Amino acid sequence: MVNSKRMEENFRRLGTIGAQPGGGITRLAFGDSDWEARTFVIELMKQAGLTVRVDAFGNVIGRREGTDPTAPVVMLGSHIDSVPAGGNFDGVVGVLAAVEVAACLQDAGAKKQHPIEVVVFMAEESSRFGMATLGSKAFCGKLPLSQLEQLTDKQGMTLADAMRQRGLAPEQVATAKYTGQIKTFLELHIEQGKVLESTGDQIGIVTGIAAPTRLKVAITGQADHSGATPMSMRQDALTAAAELILLVEKLAGQEGHNGTVGTTGMVKAEPGVMNVIPGYVELGIDIRGISENSKQLVVQGLVAGFEEIRNRRNVKIESTIISDEKPVEISREIVEYLHDIAKQGQYVCRLMPSGAGHDAMHLSEIAPTGMLFIPCKGGISHNSAEWADMEDIVAGTQLLFTAVNHLVG
Amino acid sequence: MVNSKRMEENFRRLGTIGAQPGGGITRLAFGDSDWEARTFVIELMKQAGLTVRVDAFGNVIGRREGTDPTAPVVMLGSHIDSVPAGGNFDGVVGVLAAVEVAACLQDAGAKKQHPIEVVVFMAEESSRFGMATLGSKAFCGKLPLSQLEQLTDKQGMTLADAMRQRGLAPEQVATAKYTGQIKTFLELHIEQGKVLESTGDQIGIVTGIAAPTRLKVAITGQADHSGATPMSMRQDALTAAAELILLVEKLAGQEGHNGTVGTTGMVKAEPGVMNVIPGYVELGIDIRGISENSKQLVVQGLVAGFEEIRNRRNVKIESTIISDEKPVEISREIVEYLHDIAKQGQYVCRLMPSGAGHDAMHLSEIAPTGMLFIPCKGGISHNSAEWADMEDIVAGTQLLFTAVNHLVG
Repeated sequence: MVNSKRMEENFRRLGTIGAQPGGGITRLAFGDSDWEARTFVIELMKQAGLTVRVDAFGNVIGRREGTDPTAPVVMLGSHIDSVPAGGNFDGVVGVLAAVEVAACLQDAGAKKQHPIEVVVFMAEESSRFGMATLGSKAFCGKLPLSQLEQLTDKQGMTLADAMRQRGLAPEQVATAKYTGQIKTFLELHIEQGKVLESTGDQIGIVTGIAAPTRLKVAITGQADHSGATPMSMRQDALTAAAELILLVEKLAGQEGHNGTVGTTGMVKAEPGVMNVIPGYVELGIDIRGISENSKQLVVQGLVAGFEEIRNRRNVKIESTIISDEKPVEISREIVEYLHDIAKQGQYVCRLMPSGAGHDAMHLSEIAPTGMLFIPCKGGISHNSAEWADMEDIVAGTQLLFTAVNHLVG
Repeated sequence: MVNSKRMEENFRRLGTIGAQPGGGITRLAFGDSDWEARTFVIELMKQAGLTVRVDAFGNVIGRREGTDPTAPVVMLGSHIDSVPAGGNFDGVVGVLAAVEVAACLQDAGAKKQHPIEVVVFMAEESSRFGMATLGSKAFCGKLPLSQLEQLTDKQGMTLADAMRQRGLAPEQVATAKYTGQIKTFLELHIEQGKVLESTGDQIGIVTGIAAPTRLKVAITGQADHSGATPMSMRQDALTAAAELILLVEKLAGQEGHNGTVGTTGMVKAEPGVMNVIPGYVELGIDIRGISENSKQLVVQGLVAGFEEIRNRRNVKIESTIISDEKPVEISREIVEYLHDIAKQGQYVCRLMPSGAGHDAMHLSEIAPTGMLFIPCKGGISHNSAEWADMEDIVAGTQLLFTAVNHLVG
């Protein structure tokens, strides 16, 4: 059984590292607080009986041997870095739960066939180097040295130099690629949305990880005097943009039952003054879904909308797809396995997509992968107000333990 | 008859004063170039036989006596200051045309009953001190000393000090109030819109000067994760804003036949990143019309829309009216008088509202006032690309001359 007192204490202690005077946690990847938190987790791993090693990117791997050292590994993991003034749950829940699972097995003195590994992936947040899930990318052999030399933080320091400051050898990054056999990878995470809170479910079993298709749309009309230009003579870039914003909402709404969502998060209108009709507008549109088909239906509907609005309003609409990632499907076997265990444990649970990206996305390319969600208050994440109840954390950890306990044989 | 060679030469010479290396004219109110241009126009006035005096605000008044010095004055005027990198036609057309009318009367050695005054109003543009038509306000007794001490430029210099630098006595500003009797005030101006260009008319006879009602609208929703929040659980401030932007367009379109226009010129969405649903949006809305009733219909329609959108979308909508000015009606007599003369002269002309504000707005409070427009290329103004054809300038001046010639008896 999960030791909730121990977990609570671990959360409390980790929550002091990088705590900001104004609230929230700042642990930017490879920064001092991140490194201090990493040292703290290494200590916890050792207390839980894990043997700790570090790969060339700095990812921490704590291993508990099985009775058959050649059997495939059951792997758990997440991250402990944060956005500026972020919360103490995003990533942390998955790491401390994984450590707790190992500690429980140690408490029980259990002998299991399969080895277990608990991984802390470095640099999951994009806040410092502008790219997310760097540690799990390196772990899956997808982060070349050239990229370590290219990515820089706001002070102009390259990721490679940040690694060197921590005594790591970026030239060796290729060796961070995991070469062992993984039976299953599992990640527990806060939902970062408010579905579980609204439905009252305690556990979400992730059916797929949505990937964004992002478009930048530039609308060029004519910047005329707002008083001297009759309504019928306008080429208003902002009213054209408003139609697009509503079209994104409508098309995504029509695909809502497939888990697809669409958001216009950025808008910039020029010249942006009261007495001039906007002649130029830029929109940033984010379409996400766990069904590639459904996502593409929205994108295609948008492109058709561009054409129609362009012709009707006599404006120029140029769109650029700035990223187009494929959603990660979680295998039906793993979803059913986790669902069965959850039902046996009488957890109130639901199957749901993950709208946000996670380290598990990359792991899914090298191992059968599953994800579990617990609720977070108001769906708020990447914010000092991020919060998950210890009761839910313990429940998620207990379910993770049960799942692992079966898997390790 | 108007001397087009003389006019062309005056435009050329005035156009060198404040000319920018990158194109356009910069003559900020009371700045060196503005003052140099003013000196040049004073010289032209004298050449046209006008007796020049200056009021306490620095407005220049050139007078041609009538045979009856007690008869009410026929007054013409506009301004010569500009926005940064503005054009050489906004205001300038009205001033140089007025000077040309005086020159023509001198050429003809005409004896007329009524005196004529040509006025250069100072500081019509708001570029330096943040408030427009200052000279004509002072001229109409609406610019108190306190305001001269309050208005400052970007360097922190007060308008009062800028006046002192030019040898003017701001303490005397009340004496700038015109106390004579004005028979009619006429202002010729470029349209600053593209109606005349599109309709092929050479002259616009202004039926009213639109005044803006401006609203700042703040929409507060919920800034949630763009991937993790289903479409049905959103409180998206930007999609609500998009509906408002289209509502402004629709309501103003319905009042288009009354000359009312509506524009959303400013939009700001926060946090303004790809992966967060905008939780807060600010809009700047400008409604203008020459019919107060029609303008208020649009404003009332908007307020009803706020209510409907607020309820349906579960967002907060707060609107503030940041300015609410009354349109200036041009008397039907003057419009008909100018229209008759234009038709007799076989000018292709149309009656139309002025969307932009002008010195004539204030003059209309102390005198029967009329305005004439000539086309400007592409409707572009306040820009180095501002352009009016000399042919149209001459035609406008000729019409102005004819109108004055009748008025002076």
